Amino acid sequence: MTTNDNPFAGHNGPIDTQDGLYSEDELRLSNRNSGILLETLALDVTPTGLHYLLNHFDVPLLDAGNHKLSFSGAFDTAAELSLDEIKAMPQVTLPVTLECAGNGRAGVSPRLHAMPWIYEAVGTSEWTGTPLRPLIEQMGLRSDAVEIAFTGADYGFDKGVGHSFGRSLTLAQIAELDVMLVYAMNGQPLLPQHGAPLRLIVPGWYGMASVKWLERIEALTQPYDGFQQLRTYRYRETAEDPGRPVTAIRVKSLMVPPGVPDWGSRKRYLEPGPVTLTGRAWSGAGVPISRVEVELDGAWQEARLEAAVGDYAWTKWTCDWTASPGEHVLRCRATDADGQVQPLEAPWDAAGFGNNAAQKVVVFVGQSAAAL
Amino acid sequence: MTTNDNPFAGHNGPIDTQDGLYSEDELRLSNRNSGILLETLALDVTPTGLHYLLNHFDVPLLDAGNHKLSFSGAFDTAAELSLDEIKAMPQVTLPVTLECAGNGRAGVSPRLHAMPWIYEAVGTSEWTGTPLRPLIEQMGLRSDAVEIAFTGADYGFDKGVGHSFGRSLTLAQIAELDVMLVYAMNGQPLLPQHGAPLRLIVPGWYGMASVKWLERIEALTQPYDGFQQLRTYRYRETAEDPGRPVTAIRVKSLMVPPGVPDWGSRKRYLEPGPVTLTGRAWSGAGVPISRVEVELDGAWQEARLEAAVGDYAWTKWTCDWTASPGEHVLRCRATDADGQVQPLEAPWDAAGFGNNAAQKVVVFVGQSAAAL
Repeated sequence: MTTNDNPFAGHNGPIDTQDGLYSEDELRLSNRNSGILLETLALDVTPTGLHYLLNHFDVPLLDAGNHKLSFSGAFDTAAELSLDEIKAMPQVTLPVTLECAGNGRAGVSPRLHAMPWIYEAVGTSEWTGTPLRPLIEQMGLRSDAVEIAFTGADYGFDKGVGHSFGRSLTLAQIAELDVMLVYAMNGQPLLPQHGAPLRLIVPGWYGMASVKWLERIEALTQPYDGFQQLRTYRYRETAEDPGRPVTAIRVKSLMVPPGVPDWGSRKRYLEPGPVTLTGRAWSGAGVPISRVEVELDGAWQEARLEAAVGDYAWTKWTCDWTASPGEHVLRCRATDADGQVQPLEAPWDAAGFGNNAAQKVVVFVGQSAAAL
Repeated sequence: MTTNDNPFAGHNGPIDTQDGLYSEDELRLSNRNSGILLETLALDVTPTGLHYLLNHFDVPLLDAGNHKLSFSGAFDTAAELSLDEIKAMPQVTLPVTLECAGNGRAGVSPRLHAMPWIYEAVGTSEWTGTPLRPLIEQMGLRSDAVEIAFTGADYGFDKGVGHSFGRSLTLAQIAELDVMLVYAMNGQPLLPQHGAPLRLIVPGWYGMASVKWLERIEALTQPYDGFQQLRTYRYRETAEDPGRPVTAIRVKSLMVPPGVPDWGSRKRYLEPGPVTLTGRAWSGAGVPISRVEVELDGAWQEARLEAAVGDYAWTKWTCDWTASPGEHVLRCRATDADGQVQPLEAPWDAAGFGNNAAQKVVVFVGQSAAAL
């Protein structure tokens, strides 16, 4: 199959979306791509199986025993490494908060016809593997290399173009970011849906950079031109705009919705009285969180911050509130050490990338809510 | 909080649904409740984290070290067991295929406004625990007991009624079904989202019977009247119909969609030539699968069956096909040893329960599909 095959050429024209109504295709994506359950934001590490999943194509079921990672292009010699050889290299475990670049897309109007995340495409896991930079050097990277391309085993079509999922990083980015070649998650071998047996983790960047089912590392002497880097994962004003690449995660926070839910609407019910609100905040590329505020009854209150779970992992926050009877809309917003603050409204992007607007949670407090 | 609280009374009236368009509430449910990825039907055991999840309320984060299971009602004496005490009892591991009673709801017209599953609410895990029946007898069940009620730690509202999730089984059902008290899944302690630290597994029945986060076992001398047994999980012609309880899983089959997907539409692309189709079939209450047929180019072909993964777990099937250029609609349907056959159209149910209609997969084969 080549990238000239175009079986879906007629099936991916612009599709009009309506605010608050979702198509069968969007439902199909939503039933495939799963997110965190917000109540588990109470935990430092997201339970295995609740870390968000955004897989473009089918999950390849690879054989760890026979898996090989190839090195080609501008290396002194082409080479292949087995999983056992990679596991024998220096090992590091790092808690990393990953977020999907499309998280919040359902809140952007008009939204692109793609996976309609609300708030849930985030998670923190403890990733175990070997640092990428020394490995790349060890493989004899030539001085004319400018970028490194990473290709997964997952293949499919997007906008009529057949391709394996792939991304690249410049040498400068690899030097700056603590990129890892990963084979375990939360102390267990990678699960098939999370990239088994081998994947990249690019701490601090949105998830698209952390290529799963990694098969091929190629040193390029020319800039990379892969579909997932030039055709998508770009901030664009309009669909025609060439755009700027999506990279580091924008500052964001989420709260554990207080009280108990209504099954169908997920609205919250809470008894009157004191309650401690809690949640998580994070920003990209290792920038610490400096402040979280919670809007309670129209006033922004300062939240208390705990120590971050790691240099690239989220920070727990708590904030006390005395819940009075009636309906309340709670919001939270974080500020990072670079002074970036979450906006209150969704930033515009044609594809709904990077929506870090403050979360809203509707809460009904006490008996009087029965009349609402 | 009592069951008289009714904060959502005004928020759960009948909502009209439209075929092929989904509301914000349905999207919220779809983003919380995740299903299997159909490509992993190739595996005997569903990878941890891909087994479907349908959680009515928030996941309670319970402390396994302090968790107690209480026995009350018509037992000789009230008692509490710790997790360690339960783990010291006879241990059994059983592969079980579970399916959500609402699986396929999106294919029922008009559909209830609830979790809009397409095909993915199914999974097979290896569950480890202790058989329930001898434990119940050991606890001194009184002769006037008629049912056993099981209550979880998850609490919330449905149709304005606040309640902990609960279900019951009659003594006859407990005697017939190999019900287990379970603390491990696929060789690991239960994950929070799957009922940690303790849950019920009712093999052969739809998933609602397998109560998670189990806290309380009560022997009743009168029939159970819990919300999740009388108000929902009933087959009804109309919403007013008192209905019949949803119990054993209906005969069903699914195929691994062949070829590779288009990202947005999930339609499939395949090269012309021979291909072996594969999938799984299952039926409820331990009834074996006797036949699977696959519709290829308008004719139903017999599939080959492998041995079932277990008495209560699915059966792998395979079927050879020579794919010719063009668009094809593939379907599969199973028959069980009781002679039950999957229907081709969704059986009517007011709440969309028990939809076991044959799966349809649209496939584009070869270059000529480019013109479609």
